[in-house]
Amino acid sequence: MEGREGKDIENNEGGAMAMPVAVGGEEEGEGRGVMERNGVGGGGSGFFYEEEDKEMGMREPLLRRRTMNTTSQLAIVGANVSPIESLDYEIVENDLYKQDWRSRRKVQIFQYVVLKWTLALLIGLGTGLVGFFNNLAVENIAGFKLLLTNNLMLKERYREAFLAYAGCNLVLAAAAAALCAYVAPAAAGSGIPEVKAYLNGVDAHSILAPSTLFVKIFGSIGGVAAGFVLGKEGPMVHTGACIANLLGQGGSRKYHLTWTWLRYFKNDRDRRDLITCGAAAGVAAAFRAPVGGVLFALEEAASWKGAPFKILLTVTISLLTSCCSYGLPWLAKCTRCPLDLDQCPTIGRSGNFKNFQCPPGHYNDLASLFLNTNDDAIRNLFSSGTDNEFYISTLFVFFAAIYFLGIVTYGIAVPSGLFIPVILAGASYGRLVGTILGPMCALDKGLFALLGAASFLGGTMRMTVSVCVILLELTNDLLMLPLVMLVLLVSKTVADSFNRGVYDQIVTMKGLPYMEAHAEPYMRNLVAGDVVSGPLITFSGVEKVGNIVHALRLTGHNGFPVVDEPPFSDAPELCGLVLRSHLLVLLKGRRFTKDRVLTGPAEVFRRFGAFDFAKAGSGKGVKLQDLDINGEEMEMYVDIHPITNRSPYTVVETMSLAKAAVLFRELGLRHLCVVPKTPGRPPIVGILTRHDFMPEHILGLFPQFKHHM
Amino acid sequence: MEGREGKDIENNEGGAMAMPVAVGGEEEGEGRGVMERNGVGGGGSGFFYEEEDKEMGMREPLLRRRTMNTTSQLAIVGANVSPIESLDYEIVENDLYKQDWRSRRKVQIFQYVVLKWTLALLIGLGTGLVGFFNNLAVENIAGFKLLLTNNLMLKERYREAFLAYAGCNLVLAAAAAALCAYVAPAAAGSGIPEVKAYLNGVDAHSILAPSTLFVKIFGSIGGVAAGFVLGKEGPMVHTGACIANLLGQGGSRKYHLTWTWLRYFKNDRDRRDLITCGAAAGVAAAFRAPVGGVLFALEEAASWKGAPFKILLTVTISLLTSCCSYGLPWLAKCTRCPLDLDQCPTIGRSGNFKNFQCPPGHYNDLASLFLNTNDDAIRNLFSSGTDNEFYISTLFVFFAAIYFLGIVTYGIAVPSGLFIPVILAGASYGRLVGTILGPMCALDKGLFALLGAASFLGGTMRMTVSVCVILLELTNDLLMLPLVMLVLLVSKTVADSFNRGVYDQIVTMKGLPYMEAHAEPYMRNLVAGDVVSGPLITFSGVEKVGNIVHALRLTGHNGFPVVDEPPFSDAPELCGLVLRSHLLVLLKGRRFTKDRVLTGPAEVFRRFGAFDFAKAGSGKGVKLQDLDINGEEMEMYVDIHPITNRSPYTVVETMSLAKAAVLFRELGLRHLCVVPKTPGRPPIVGILTRHDFMPEHILGLFPQFKHHM
Repeated sequence: MEGREGKDIENNEGGAMAMPVAVGGEEEGEGRGVMERNGVGGGGSGFFYEEEDKEMGMREPLLRRRTMNTTSQLAIVGANVSPIESLDYEIVENDLYKQDWRSRRKVQIFQYVVLKWTLALLIGLGTGLVGFFNNLAVENIAGFKLLLTNNLMLKERYREAFLAYAGCNLVLAAAAAALCAYVAPAAAGSGIPEVKAYLNGVDAHSILAPSTLFVKIFGSIGGVAAGFVLGKEGPMVHTGACIANLLGQGGSRKYHLTWTWLRYFKNDRDRRDLITCGAAAGVAAAFRAPVGGVLFALEEAASWKGAPFKILLTVTISLLTSCCSYGLPWLAKCTRCPLDLDQCPTIGRSGNFKNFQCPPGHYNDLASLFLNTNDDAIRNLFSSGTDNEFYISTLFVFFAAIYFLGIVTYGIAVPSGLFIPVILAGASYGRLVGTILGPMCALDKGLFALLGAASFLGGTMRMTVSVCVILLELTNDLLMLPLVMLVLLVSKTVADSFNRGVYDQIVTMKGLPYMEAHAEPYMRNLVAGDVVSGPLITFSGVEKVGNIVHALRLTGHNGFPVVDEPPFSDAPELCGLVLRSHLLVLLKGRRFTKDRVLTGPAEVFRRFGAFDFAKAGSGKGVKLQDLDINGEEMEMYVDIHPITNRSPYTVVETMSLAKAAVLFRELGLRHLCVVPKTPGRPPIVGILTRHDFMPEHILGLFPQFKHHM
Repeated sequence: MEGREGKDIENNEGGAMAMPVAVGGEEEGEGRGVMERNGVGGGGSGFFYEEEDKEMGMREPLLRRRTMNTTSQLAIVGANVSPIESLDYEIVENDLYKQDWRSRRKVQIFQYVVLKWTLALLIGLGTGLVGFFNNLAVENIAGFKLLLTNNLMLKERYREAFLAYAGCNLVLAAAAAALCAYVAPAAAGSGIPEVKAYLNGVDAHSILAPSTLFVKIFGSIGGVAAGFVLGKEGPMVHTGACIANLLGQGGSRKYHLTWTWLRYFKNDRDRRDLITCGAAAGVAAAFRAPVGGVLFALEEAASWKGAPFKILLTVTISLLTSCCSYGLPWLAKCTRCPLDLDQCPTIGRSGNFKNFQCPPGHYNDLASLFLNTNDDAIRNLFSSGTDNEFYISTLFVFFAAIYFLGIVTYGIAVPSGLFIPVILAGASYGRLVGTILGPMCALDKGLFALLGAASFLGGTMRMTVSVCVILLELTNDLLMLPLVMLVLLVSKTVADSFNRGVYDQIVTMKGLPYMEAHAEPYMRNLVAGDVVSGPLITFSGVEKVGNIVHALRLTGHNGFPVVDEPPFSDAPELCGLVLRSHLLVLLKGRRFTKDRVLTGPAEVFRRFGAFDFAKAGSGKGVKLQDLDINGEEMEMYVDIHPITNRSPYTVVETMSLAKAAVLFRELGLRHLCVVPKTPGRPPIVGILTRHDFMPEHILGLFPQFKHHM
């Protein structure tokens, strides 16, 4: 369902339409609306309505009230444009839930807890194994590649050496790119923005799909082994999240891996928790930094919260990278190896000193950085007590090349992490500064490199605590803690005064509707009623089947307000909110009544268990086309009270939009009901969803606030 | 104000009364209420009302509707029973706020940011200096005491030695106790529960008062130097918070330290941020563990969070402690000093080996633990490569004694931390286990001690990440990280299956109305309307001065709903919420009108600046008795629209209480308006406050849920 819906433009989670209808009744006159029957909602339960501008201190052309929320329901996941849905973190408190909750025994709760811990353990184990396999594969492939190149160079067959080197890189790069392009485009890039958005409440079928997991693992290996200036950290975070999702949703029907005893976790809240664990496990596996991993997940997850072209591009950049790594070292002059070193150049293994074109007993310091795995290059830069290992010129060339390559590489369609490039650039920058300051400063050059890396990380990721701990866990030296913290603080503060963190920016670029922790200032000048957009479709407590089916077919809304009306209440009142997925399950049950009567929950309990309404995995669950309802049944009625969430969160239409946004974000909502302030009006004005809080939507309605940006 | 109010039983933040009045109008009949004039609210703006039980699926005797929330407005702060108030974290969006917000220029925002960073810096600096001073004082006083005792014992004058030792302890203990008893009882104990509660939204005048700060510092020095089994960590956290509060509220008028440029921070939100920094600085200063400090604050603050007898008790326990520390070592047998040690016993300085009663060249291992500062004792227990330093019997006796003394000591009225006792007990326990396992296990005994300390900390504090980092920063060895994490995980899990963390329990014992992160299960069976309690006092948009003064005098409510009525609206509608403190400022301004007319915001802007309404420090601000309003003015009217918060958070009366609690806690609210579900009713049913979510209140109304506990 989610998959299909996304295509049509009307698809937002819900919403409220307002049409310019005959204004009647009240004194305030202008803007105060009246109720009309809604052809779609049917059963006298749909409203067209126009809200009053009295409180909002501004007059807007009524035109905008006619607009619908046309913000894109599509976002870029990896390199793939895919429809997005919101996640249901809110507990749906309907009769079924209450009944199921009452029926839960202590033993079941204990079972649930044990299962959750077990799953966390499995996630950690799985991610750890993948990380181990990753490192093993990269080390071997890259090692073989470098060994081959070295041996050829020792025989002074430089052309063959380059061809071998560039060739290996090309093959690996092409393979990785092909996987991303044809198997799972969603696996391209770092993946951290996607995970961030998911934990913020944005879902897309492909974000954590098994195919994404597969490509993420092997694409990452290929990309890193191909010598690109990219890291495996981001991909590992995404991998961990994928593994968690795979286990969390009880495996995958598509791949015939399902466990029934995992049904407890068929809801978005538990999945969110597990995926947070997965992300943490990913960082831990990538950096071997467990505490940092936990913190990374906490800082990030704090939310609650044309293929051939791609391959061509990747191949081009691979070629460019190969040329840099192989070509630039020719500019460096040879250095005599330190005497204490047993064998130099270090042949037949990836190590500190490469002799490249130099005579025996000499080494090429630039080659020692370029013709190495990224990890070894970082180790070289961080190495202490080797103050004279690198020339200033070398460090400058390396810094410039890595900085440039890192920027152009991130865009390519292979799983690519940002940490390693940033650390490489930062470390070389730091060591460069250290070498320049050398005469007047006794500090070790390796420390400078570390601080440089810290500053770049702080300025890019803007995550101070976790980056700090990760660096400490990497270097295992707590004594430089104060220095690292200071550097991080300064770099973050300076960077913050210019723009937002790199992941936030990528999230925005990808068009993922991310809810910021803080409301935009201009939202204070608006009220909730200003941004609700249509059409609003409501159901009455006992609704005609035809109307429901019609509404489900006509719109992509995922939440519908349920309004009780005479004879079930003496005046129209908001009963609650019903979810599309629940309606579909209810309709599939085909328990309908000839007349408009309350059947009560008992009937539903008899027919369904609570788990029939449990949230299926992304892209699964009952689809509209699965329903086979005949014309006769279309005329019958169904009582939707038992599946109605009786306690939806509501705000008054005059609530400041800023405060409504805080409420929405803090509680991780999907639907927020907007209720009228004044009496004698329809009991619901509209529904606010994630998309209604997006700047592009609001600024589209109120262009005058653009200058506030 | 806060100080006085607390006394009267009616004082809750607000509330809704319901009296059994003539039931009228609606079909549902039973329970559906009608509006009545409220003698207190006056001006036709007060309602008595009785809410409908239709949705709640249970019938309760109407009697309970008559009850008021009689939960205690008093809590134990330190050793002092003091009235408590809630903090206003919610942004009061009234006309003044909006106007002030619009008037803010970029430069002012920049100034604000710079100020906040500067304050954070000063807080860190101040706390660091206090910590340094603390350690210096303790080291010197305790050092002198131990040196004196040692020298006397070397002269074999054991009785004098004991008298000197016990005497010093007595004097120090009595001094600390006297400070706590007579100057600031609020400074007794750890202080972490108080800080936790403050960050959760509970305020008491004395929690962070300057006098508390003073006593916290010197009382802590006395207590630790007196050789009690207690730590200085908790007190340091409290000290940091006090310093932050002192700076945050622009100094203290009482002590003539005020800066006008700090007015930006005269609100509870900024104070909360600064006090969180202060708490973190406190931990950092106590443990020299900056990252751990930050994490500690995050884990803890994640909220949004009869004198002579006392002295006698303290003196008794001091005597008991002295007897244990001096008496028990006599049971231990002497050990020959290791040959590698240059001088043994280490005379004239606090060190590893005390020879106590032993002949030269020998040492008493029990004395080496007891007759030492706590820090040195811990260092001894953690020391590696000294596997045979302590006998099993020694470790057992020490563990038992410390465990017992730690328990009895925490209650005494001196600033007392829990960390050191727990670490001491844990370390001795761990080393004991290690020594027992000695033959079959090659691991170092010091590592066992560390793991033991970790397990005790995890089981007591239940803070895994921060404790882990603190321990690592203490030992500066990251290689044992996995082991420590495992131990913490196990201990926390085991402990969680029995009870809540020690600080949570103390918070409950002290009667601080702490909002738990998760709602109690039985709340799912209740709706918001079930727990609102009276009396509800509402004002109309333009209210008679007399009514306001009367209401303020009669009740201690801090928030009053404002209801617009004809002619200002065509039907009664909820305009917003007005705070007591704002009303007092407005009334003090004495701008009243003869007739009931809207004066509009302009008048208020002319008379007041936004900072006139800024929240004054705890216990400050305009008091009711400061108002001098004559009889004539009592009959005049005042327009309270400009100071009314137009966007109060609201829930429908049928909202599940559990979800209302989550809303309340997540947004850090003080007042939550409950609005009616059905039309044709007064626009507000009542107000929920922190106290209405407290188990004792709810279970008082619904005793049948007690078995759910």
